[in-house]
Amino acid sequence: MSDYATDKNPEVTMEEIVALAKRRGFVFPSSEIYGGLGSTYDYGHYGVLLKNNVKNEWWKSMLVERDDIVALDSAILQHPKVWEASGHLAGFTDPLVQCLGECKRRWREDHLREANVEKGGNYDDPIVCPECGGELSPPRNFNLMFETHMGPVADDGNAVYLRPETAQGIFINFKNVLNFARKKPPFGIAQVGKSFRNEITPGNFIFRTREFEQMEMEFFVPPAEAQQWWEKWVEIRHNWYLELGIRPDFLMIRPHEADELSHYSSGTSDVEYLFPIGWSELEGIANRGNFDLTQHQEHSGESMEFFDQASGERYIPHVIEPAAGADRATLAFLVDSYFEEEVEGRKRTVLQLHPRLAPVKVAVLPLFNKEGMPETAREINTALRKAGIQTEFDSGGSIGKRYRRQDEIGTPWGVTVDFDTKDDGQVTLRDRDSLEQIRVPIEGLPEMIAGKLAEPWQSPKLDQAP
Amino acid sequence: MSDYATDKNPEVTMEEIVALAKRRGFVFPSSEIYGGLGSTYDYGHYGVLLKNNVKNEWWKSMLVERDDIVALDSAILQHPKVWEASGHLAGFTDPLVQCLGECKRRWREDHLREANVEKGGNYDDPIVCPECGGELSPPRNFNLMFETHMGPVADDGNAVYLRPETAQGIFINFKNVLNFARKKPPFGIAQVGKSFRNEITPGNFIFRTREFEQMEMEFFVPPAEAQQWWEKWVEIRHNWYLELGIRPDFLMIRPHEADELSHYSSGTSDVEYLFPIGWSELEGIANRGNFDLTQHQEHSGESMEFFDQASGERYIPHVIEPAAGADRATLAFLVDSYFEEEVEGRKRTVLQLHPRLAPVKVAVLPLFNKEGMPETAREINTALRKAGIQTEFDSGGSIGKRYRRQDEIGTPWGVTVDFDTKDDGQVTLRDRDSLEQIRVPIEGLPEMIAGKLAEPWQSPKLDQAP
Repeated sequence: MSDYATDKNPEVTMEEIVALAKRRGFVFPSSEIYGGLGSTYDYGHYGVLLKNNVKNEWWKSMLVERDDIVALDSAILQHPKVWEASGHLAGFTDPLVQCLGECKRRWREDHLREANVEKGGNYDDPIVCPECGGELSPPRNFNLMFETHMGPVADDGNAVYLRPETAQGIFINFKNVLNFARKKPPFGIAQVGKSFRNEITPGNFIFRTREFEQMEMEFFVPPAEAQQWWEKWVEIRHNWYLELGIRPDFLMIRPHEADELSHYSSGTSDVEYLFPIGWSELEGIANRGNFDLTQHQEHSGESMEFFDQASGERYIPHVIEPAAGADRATLAFLVDSYFEEEVEGRKRTVLQLHPRLAPVKVAVLPLFNKEGMPETAREINTALRKAGIQTEFDSGGSIGKRYRRQDEIGTPWGVTVDFDTKDDGQVTLRDRDSLEQIRVPIEGLPEMIAGKLAEPWQSPKLDQAP
Repeated sequence: MSDYATDKNPEVTMEEIVALAKRRGFVFPSSEIYGGLGSTYDYGHYGVLLKNNVKNEWWKSMLVERDDIVALDSAILQHPKVWEASGHLAGFTDPLVQCLGECKRRWREDHLREANVEKGGNYDDPIVCPECGGELSPPRNFNLMFETHMGPVADDGNAVYLRPETAQGIFINFKNVLNFARKKPPFGIAQVGKSFRNEITPGNFIFRTREFEQMEMEFFVPPAEAQQWWEKWVEIRHNWYLELGIRPDFLMIRPHEADELSHYSSGTSDVEYLFPIGWSELEGIANRGNFDLTQHQEHSGESMEFFDQASGERYIPHVIEPAAGADRATLAFLVDSYFEEEVEGRKRTVLQLHPRLAPVKVAVLPLFNKEGMPETAREINTALRKAGIQTEFDSGGSIGKRYRRQDEIGTPWGVTVDFDTKDDGQVTLRDRDSLEQIRVPIEGLPEMIAGKLAEPWQSPKLDQAP
């Protein structure tokens, strides 16, 4: 890899991804008919299916394929003391200057000063509000948590916050889980759900939004094992992206520098992807020590200690946290799979997604709307859906046009019913990546597709390094 | 059924369900180590698995088994104009009186007057604050939406609301979906997600909470077909609960009386379940006419009309809305499957859940921790998990105790590895409901379980009417 700071994904721009997402119904700007609501997005049909597949694969890797992790789904609205203990109330802030003029807008002072330097000014020049020219206040800390009020009491004593991360919901339930789950460290608690941060500068499509979805797991370990488990989880999480088809050259592990580390963390590594905006964080894997459990023990008065009956040891477990963003992962899979290429003299746009991530697995296509082809295709469609396979029945337009539409949404297989089908009981199976077309019997099609979905897969573009 | 108003579920009390939920890690009171946060709950391991299964079954019935419905996942934070158009800003209110004394609490006036009557007073007596004895204000409308502020501007112009229902996110995306999905009415848009209502009197465990999860589908139809589609969806949704094992006598369809109907609805029926608190709503199926799309057309200026090229007709579709609560459905499945019974001279508590809803499908149990039994059991466990089947490996305690623990979390099958297993390659398969134990080969176990999960199922207590 050449230059960390200037690298960009060479195949696709963010604009192309945003355009495809809108055109094909993956992601829409939210509240669009009312002029939109800054950096908030609604997932359309294919976007929901894709993101659900991403979440399911994470879930499967955490909870189905291993049995040392249990599930949790804690509330978005939690007791304010949770955020006092975690440090978010005091420290989850950005320093902002506020316009004392007409518009009252708040700004990151460093951003304003940098913009002034770009325009040829000096960093230390007096600056004014870029919106209305008003005078600016001295910088003040602005909390990134969304505040609201719960219950019928009118005063401010009932302020609650939308959680800025799912992790704290896990820590405050640590003892509950320990009691019923009959687990002992090392074991983990996993959670998928929405979090909210009132970011001053959201942007880059679904990369940074104020409402977003996390996939977090807290792995509780004996203190002496923390380092080795941290290294292990960095490797496990790196492999997860690779197994789902992200090309190795577009993915890297970046250990945090000493001055980037949270004060409680003895080690954090980010999994970064080469987005069109450059290398950016997909997931952080942190060795959090016993900071969180200790904080909650101090603030709640509840012991967070684990007593190991076998060894007689009593300790507050250390925590390894792989914290991934579901929206960022979805964006990375979109970017990594997007290609424009020349095929048989025609340009095609294709999402070469891992088949398990693809929103639709099989397009069922009658070649023409006659001679029983639509009816046979409907039967095949129903049989596949009964087997739990997401299909799309499409009878509109030329077969070439339909293939291209399916290529754009990343459908790995097309099944075409043609003139011969009623005689030989076979259909044409088209492969999205190799473009190979073979005849296969209708009988056993659901099992055949299920088998293909279970196979390992790698991107056909694997040899194209950046 | 005898008396609608006084009927109660005869088998279980809410206290027993709450106790089981806590004891076995289905549901914990939220922020418990900080004294809890009124009527907010965290789902523990088995609760997450159960609720996920409920949501998956709904999803499958809407999006996999039929192909006239597409998915959507709209943001929780939407533009305030959405709620202006929907009528929520003006009308989603409870009339409350506020204490003018020390505590400033708000109260439902009718609740205070009814409480006074119960204590022997008259309905029209002057009343005071039950908390601090303070004078009460005249009733004033109190909006049930949670308000927060988005973005860096300090003034009140940037108020946003946590959505009180997922439905409006669907209506505002109607045109987006119509454009890309190549659907024409009748077709539907389905969404699963959190909603928030600042209820004055939440309660009854997870039946009514301020943060809850909805499963809503809006089905858009030509106006002339609205009545017939409404009747069809009432039937489809009723059958969904029955197919997942709810006993028919504990479920009813209750058409709304004329004076209960929303002003825009020409018909609404609730699916009600006989909870321990009596018959209560699980889901409402409403014929909403073209109210919502018309409102958004008027407020946004965007046309919500559909032009039918075949017939030349142009119309705003009518909407049929089956709106279910994921938490309520989960509670109903817990209640309906809970039994305490005498088995072989011992009391057992069992959740006779539909196997597809059960959090754990198979308990894998070495009879003793010796002679290779745990190792063989681990291999079986891994093979089942690789096939995507949620299992639990349990080697602690007597086999009888382990069976009873699995009965309490509703595990349909136990697989026990015993002394004979290493000779005959077979294990004992125990059925949760019939308690039958048969020998089956290890080879092919995942396929056998997958086959059982695909079969129709009905509650073994089906003949026990209330």
